Amino acid sequence: MNPVEFIMEKRDKKTHSKEDMHSFFNAYTNDEIPDYQVATWLMAAFLNGLNTDEKICLTEAVINSGDRFNLKHINKPKVDKHSTGGVGDKTSIVLLPLLASLDVCVPMMSGRGLGHTGGTLDKLESIPGITVQLPKEEYIRIMEEHGAVFMAQTTAITPLDKKLYSLRDVTATVESIPLITASIIGKKMTEDLDALILDVKFGNGAFMKTFDAARNLAQSLVDTSKGLGVKTTALITDMNEPLGEYIGNSVEIIESINMLQGQNVESRFYDVTMALAKRMCHSAFPKAEKNWRKILEEKLSNGDAYEKFLKIINAQGVKTETVGNLRDSLPIAEKRVQIKAVQSGFISAIDSYRIGRLMVELKAGRMKITDAIDFGIGLQIFRHIGDEIKADEVIAELIVHSELETDAFARCFTIQDQPVKKTEVIREVIRR
Amino acid sequence: MNPVEFIMEKRDKKTHSKEDMHSFFNAYTNDEIPDYQVATWLMAAFLNGLNTDEKICLTEAVINSGDRFNLKHINKPKVDKHSTGGVGDKTSIVLLPLLASLDVCVPMMSGRGLGHTGGTLDKLESIPGITVQLPKEEYIRIMEEHGAVFMAQTTAITPLDKKLYSLRDVTATVESIPLITASIIGKKMTEDLDALILDVKFGNGAFMKTFDAARNLAQSLVDTSKGLGVKTTALITDMNEPLGEYIGNSVEIIESINMLQGQNVESRFYDVTMALAKRMCHSAFPKAEKNWRKILEEKLSNGDAYEKFLKIINAQGVKTETVGNLRDSLPIAEKRVQIKAVQSGFISAIDSYRIGRLMVELKAGRMKITDAIDFGIGLQIFRHIGDEIKADEVIAELIVHSELETDAFARCFTIQDQPVKKTEVIREVIRR
Repeated sequence: MNPVEFIMEKRDKKTHSKEDMHSFFNAYTNDEIPDYQVATWLMAAFLNGLNTDEKICLTEAVINSGDRFNLKHINKPKVDKHSTGGVGDKTSIVLLPLLASLDVCVPMMSGRGLGHTGGTLDKLESIPGITVQLPKEEYIRIMEEHGAVFMAQTTAITPLDKKLYSLRDVTATVESIPLITASIIGKKMTEDLDALILDVKFGNGAFMKTFDAARNLAQSLVDTSKGLGVKTTALITDMNEPLGEYIGNSVEIIESINMLQGQNVESRFYDVTMALAKRMCHSAFPKAEKNWRKILEEKLSNGDAYEKFLKIINAQGVKTETVGNLRDSLPIAEKRVQIKAVQSGFISAIDSYRIGRLMVELKAGRMKITDAIDFGIGLQIFRHIGDEIKADEVIAELIVHSELETDAFARCFTIQDQPVKKTEVIREVIRR
Repeated sequence: MNPVEFIMEKRDKKTHSKEDMHSFFNAYTNDEIPDYQVATWLMAAFLNGLNTDEKICLTEAVINSGDRFNLKHINKPKVDKHSTGGVGDKTSIVLLPLLASLDVCVPMMSGRGLGHTGGTLDKLESIPGITVQLPKEEYIRIMEEHGAVFMAQTTAITPLDKKLYSLRDVTATVESIPLITASIIGKKMTEDLDALILDVKFGNGAFMKTFDAARNLAQSLVDTSKGLGVKTTALITDMNEPLGEYIGNSVEIIESINMLQGQNVESRFYDVTMALAKRMCHSAFPKAEKNWRKILEEKLSNGDAYEKFLKIINAQGVKTETVGNLRDSLPIAEKRVQIKAVQSGFISAIDSYRIGRLMVELKAGRMKITDAIDFGIGLQIFRHIGDEIKADEVIAELIVHSELETDAFARCFTIQDQPVKKTEVIREVIRR
């Protein structure tokens, strides 16, 4: 494989052979090909695309570039969920213990927040004492004992993806469905999964702005993952308003606890979480013809799911006295500042992206990876798209350390005179 | 100008502003932008193209990246010729003294041979004692005295083009008309020209294989050069057989001397040289309504052009005794090896590319810039496309040091039973 001829092939819209794909990317993993050649290939791939076989090859190169889990000895179906990221999305925190309480192994590697969306690991770290960064053997031990563990991606996992992502970030080649596909599926496939459920979001708070773009990504993810022999289903969900009532870190843990304890939570958050959980059950036990919805509701209402959550975070370093008094152990900022409706009418749009960015400015998230997070900062949203509202009525409340100007937040809620129809949060299910 | 946004712009088929083009490429010239970002932009530009304004901006960046000539004080029209390169092309060696003998200043910067085509500088260096690499002041002094000089490109000229070319070479972005345009015109525009004549070749011995590709390149070169305020004309010429009777270094100098002394030379070489010379005269003296063909013929037959050639090479270091005995001073290999026709019929094709490569194998050219050249090696071709020939008749002769197998050379000449029509060497003239 000659790197210049390889680039030429993609430049000229030809298809790479499996062998060439593997040599090119193995060589890059081993620093034997310079960044400028890979960057040029990335632009050619961005503009001319990759077919499913090429996506599978690139994904395999990502998987094989580093360490991976071997969980064959754990005699349970291994299932994980991946979301493409949205504002207020805390479904992972509920799904992991909920599925583990049903004897599904969930080897969930999550990420940190960056830009306008929060990260599962950051949210979890608002729990005093928790450690999400553990040696691989310890992750496996916790999975053996409790069936699931909240994991951070170690540096030994998919080094090729890290190199490619850093390069894409500085060469305007991030927003490419084939490249996104290899990155997402490559990371997930190191978890030794039997099945994968994807939550592909679209809308103003999502990476994909339109339903069609999300659908294309979902199809690409499902095709590639299935091509690698893993049962895969994707839900396409609406991220045109934040998911759930709370946005922040501690506050999203509280909302997760509420759901895990069987309490009523904001309906779209509940709907998405239950739909994902049901798909995970179907994939984990494909032959069991059960009423999974009912079983899942029981696990929430009878305390099993919450108990499992406490056991797992206890195993991940949270002291027994904190576990016994979890809600009160979470840092919550002292002041509540009201955000009021600017006019009477119906909420027609909520700018989730802008809300996410404003929360980052308040230190609830980070713009660069070295920024510190203030776990106690949060936003509680009382009203959603389609709701009728009066001028000056409280739409939301900021949980902060001191009084502040809320105009920018208020402007994130568009209010119109005509009634607005509420939309379904789950728009489509893709299986191949 | 943010480099990532700049790349994104070309990726998305948008047009760059003049300011952004200049900042991006000035930054690259000063090593302030990494190769991987420029490489990515090159692929985006390769695939999505550049419009005329963008080509002009890139060319300006190339020109302004380094040193350039200022020849305002030389009170003559400054005209140069550029060829896109072919096998056996020695027109520059005749044109420079021929035009200088008509009081046209020719500040001709030439290149070295690489791959299958020879280079004017290499050919000139078969003349014992000649120096083509001189200080800028010395080039100017020779032009002041003799009106023309054979120049090598100094390292101070167009450093941006050198950086871009090195990067294109390893990123499969060489064959892009906009990028080739900026490279060619950028270099030529440092010569402080009033007019430029281009010889854009097509065929099996040229960079552009088809007439249409050559025509597109010619149009792009003319548009860009004229956009920079320089009168420009392009001839599109056929390079489906080597230009002239000889291929090599010393032997091409001999063929040039023959023409400069008014002797009959192979007709296609004569036709191209005279057509280029006539265009150079028209551009140099646009208001003079003269019979330039006749004047040029006189300059060749009366010895003026040859005398000018001797004066210039004398000024460039060739001793007076060598100048007085130039033909015999040139190194010529001792042996002649015949290449015979494999069958009777008509010559329908000559594989110039393959002949060029075979000559490089005999050390008449170089594959890498550090290879040494054997100036005495040559090939003399007696028969051309359309000529009738008998089996075993001598088509060509190699001028070499020892006997060798000629089958590979013989196979470069395709012979068919049916008669073949000779084609015109000059196919089109492009002015805007």
